[in-house]
Amino acid sequence: MFQTNPFARRENRVIKASPTVLVIFGATGDLNKRKLIPSLWSLFHDNLLPDPCIIIGASRSKLTDEQFREQLTDKVRAYARAKFNDERWCEFCNKSLFYQSVDGGKFEDFVALKARIDALTAPYYSEFEYNFYLATGPEHFGSIAYNIKESKIGEPEKNRLVIEKPFGVDLQSAKKLNSELRKFYREDQLYRIDHYLGKECVQNILVFRFGNGIFEPMWNNRYIETIYINVYEDIGVGSRAAYFDQSGILRDIVQNHVLQMLALLCIEPPVSLSNANSIRDEKVKVLSQIVPIVDKDVDKRVIRGQYSQGFIHGKPVCSYAQEAGVKEGSLTETYACIKYEIDNWRFSGVPIFVRAGKRLSKRVTEILVYFRRPPNLLFKGRQIDSLESNVLRIQVQPDEGISLTVNSKPPGPRLRARPVVMDFSYKDSYSDSSPDAYERLLLDVMKGDPTLFTRGDEIEVSWQLVDPIIEAWRDSREIYYYPAGSDGPKEAIQLAKRQ
Amino acid sequence: MFQTNPFARRENRVIKASPTVLVIFGATGDLNKRKLIPSLWSLFHDNLLPDPCIIIGASRSKLTDEQFREQLTDKVRAYARAKFNDERWCEFCNKSLFYQSVDGGKFEDFVALKARIDALTAPYYSEFEYNFYLATGPEHFGSIAYNIKESKIGEPEKNRLVIEKPFGVDLQSAKKLNSELRKFYREDQLYRIDHYLGKECVQNILVFRFGNGIFEPMWNNRYIETIYINVYEDIGVGSRAAYFDQSGILRDIVQNHVLQMLALLCIEPPVSLSNANSIRDEKVKVLSQIVPIVDKDVDKRVIRGQYSQGFIHGKPVCSYAQEAGVKEGSLTETYACIKYEIDNWRFSGVPIFVRAGKRLSKRVTEILVYFRRPPNLLFKGRQIDSLESNVLRIQVQPDEGISLTVNSKPPGPRLRARPVVMDFSYKDSYSDSSPDAYERLLLDVMKGDPTLFTRGDEIEVSWQLVDPIIEAWRDSREIYYYPAGSDGPKEAIQLAKRQ
Repeated sequence: MFQTNPFARRENRVIKASPTVLVIFGATGDLNKRKLIPSLWSLFHDNLLPDPCIIIGASRSKLTDEQFREQLTDKVRAYARAKFNDERWCEFCNKSLFYQSVDGGKFEDFVALKARIDALTAPYYSEFEYNFYLATGPEHFGSIAYNIKESKIGEPEKNRLVIEKPFGVDLQSAKKLNSELRKFYREDQLYRIDHYLGKECVQNILVFRFGNGIFEPMWNNRYIETIYINVYEDIGVGSRAAYFDQSGILRDIVQNHVLQMLALLCIEPPVSLSNANSIRDEKVKVLSQIVPIVDKDVDKRVIRGQYSQGFIHGKPVCSYAQEAGVKEGSLTETYACIKYEIDNWRFSGVPIFVRAGKRLSKRVTEILVYFRRPPNLLFKGRQIDSLESNVLRIQVQPDEGISLTVNSKPPGPRLRARPVVMDFSYKDSYSDSSPDAYERLLLDVMKGDPTLFTRGDEIEVSWQLVDPIIEAWRDSREIYYYPAGSDGPKEAIQLAKRQ
Repeated sequence: MFQTNPFARRENRVIKASPTVLVIFGATGDLNKRKLIPSLWSLFHDNLLPDPCIIIGASRSKLTDEQFREQLTDKVRAYARAKFNDERWCEFCNKSLFYQSVDGGKFEDFVALKARIDALTAPYYSEFEYNFYLATGPEHFGSIAYNIKESKIGEPEKNRLVIEKPFGVDLQSAKKLNSELRKFYREDQLYRIDHYLGKECVQNILVFRFGNGIFEPMWNNRYIETIYINVYEDIGVGSRAAYFDQSGILRDIVQNHVLQMLALLCIEPPVSLSNANSIRDEKVKVLSQIVPIVDKDVDKRVIRGQYSQGFIHGKPVCSYAQEAGVKEGSLTETYACIKYEIDNWRFSGVPIFVRAGKRLSKRVTEILVYFRRPPNLLFKGRQIDSLESNVLRIQVQPDEGISLTVNSKPPGPRLRARPVVMDFSYKDSYSDSSPDAYERLLLDVMKGDPTLFTRGDEIEVSWQLVDPIIEAWRDSREIYYYPAGSDGPKEAIQLAKRQ
């Protein structure tokens, strides 16, 4: 009875979106090749794409449709969830995959793009919805947004713009970007991607919290002792070094992915799960109740780390300083540990440790909720000094799953309590494999469901939580080095210890 | 990460009891051959028996030690947890296993028994503790107890008496038996066996409830909706038919095993888990808070069932009435479903369904705690009419384990909530296999720990919960037949439906 999940079954029926045009700017970039097109192929493979769905790759390079498709074939083979299939791939290419050379700053290129789209859609005699995916550097967002509008592609009032991170580099730049975009588009036309929100386990946070009778009553400072959100990577900065050195892990991971997970974990029950804004309202509420860490508190509540030489899976790797593209004497953080607190009725007094780092001993993204220990009274004198906490663990990647650690009596003549793990893994519990986050998010854009996208005010309030730390670091040379392949600076381990 | 339990390890160290004499009355009976001696052998095999441990089988048959040992060899091979081993078995026999012919009613036999014990213990120059296991019919309990005392075997003030069920057939006879035994022994010398209390999963109830921070706050009528205790057997009455026909499932299973499980599931936290009486005090308290079902309520809250012909695992089997030894027109229940309620602050309003039966579709003993459903508000309009309850399931036998059903989002583009099972099984979580209940209980007797034995007042208050039902049935011919191999009478399924 404990081996198979009787509830497992296929659950993939969906309502398809209307006929769709999807223009991807930055089409020769890595994101498009490794994520977007492979995801679109998987959706096509599973018959989940709208029909027709005209996908137009756009970038400055001069390419024919054929060349573009050829560039993508191997990537789809390597990165797509759905198995590659020559015949279906050809069908997908011929029907859906096109290329148009566009310079984001040149109005005339957009006029040509419009003509191309009109030619491609004309044979269908259908009304199309228009989606524009800005997978370019953020410096191009403004001009592309403007030119789409000006060249009157699609229906300006209904077009959707998808914007990749980074969304600004601080509060000021994010505000500027928001106001630029809002000149041409309403907030509900803007889809700011945070691909963590497309991950199954992240989406499950709300279902788990609000779909079970037993968790919500425990979900407060009376029962929860400590929360950890860990985003650990074993890779270094690699070819992204020059970009990363300008950014750091706070901007790269914490401001977006981590704070989004934190928000979902801690929001009050929204009015509805069917209404994107009711969830986003609650996220903004709870994010604005997190106490910003400013000035001297930064030293006490935040650890900045950077990796030195070390070993990853037995192989020697260089220090961050030695990575090609990193400025000499760089104090950019490759690791951060932050002790946040939420100043509201539900969570006041519960420390929330946020930890993110590169070149650590393992790759895992997980949320750990430690519940308060029960009184030990009953187990006194039974060689149990203190009972272990119950821990709810949500593993976001790799190997999605949720587990609960409980104390149980091991077989044998003595009355003792020892932790055991009750768990379920997606692999064992569901016959369907989890779609890639981008599959889900692309579908949602095409259906016009903004629930899993970040609203402008969420972005801004998140920057407010990160900016003062970056600010304080600018005036300080305090940084803690940790060997690549370790668990981060020991000062961070000390900070994040449970009381 | 979700496959192995990091906490599993060997945990079998114990403090051994003092030098021990164990006399087993009824030594040629089934219980001794299938359970007691195999358990003692397993304990010996694992070096858990006291040393020396003089075990003397006693019954009316005239047997030599050799003949007695020979009778047991095959049984130990077949029924013991520990693997049989010729050499060690010989060692066990020679050192520990003896036989003495004793008629429980004859004083002179006890004098001879005493002489034999003295001869066997003399070479050790040690002080022994004396335990007497009454594995006979209850009609012999009184005279055996009396003769042990009179013949001055052991130290009358310290001797321990182990008494097998049935402990009386109703409140009156139980009271009589209690007062007979108490003439010669103090309550703390009496060890009334309920072997369910020796089962690992039953012992785990208290550890699970009071060793975890997350369950106790939910353990009340605000969060618990319904409780089920199911003791389902697929076997019929077989060779026990004549006995069973006098008894019925209420006396055979409910009055003892089921009500003991119910008590452990529902007690208030005891002052200590190290003190047998503080647990037993709480059990008596909660059992006396169960509302007895009397008179007309019996029809409404209890279903009496008896199996008719049917199929068990595809093979045709006879009806109860056709079993050899069953009186014609017998209305003895082979199945009962009872809806109890506990009239206290914690559980008032929570229906507790107790179900026990023979010749059912499966063999399982389980406790199911259904928690109240969360409000469905958030999932409205998402093809979820009502969220499923969370269910904590404690499987006592076979395949011990504990599982928790939770609602989770299945992978895919839609936001839904579907139940999945989080669980741990003893087999996967612990490297040690669970000892047989009798191993644990025999060790506890020898160490003088009465925690897992039923106190006299517990027995009496349990009979108070069963007697009025049996009483009411005496005046009624209402009985519901169910085909062997089914899930019991459909009237019972109706009664036990969750609201």
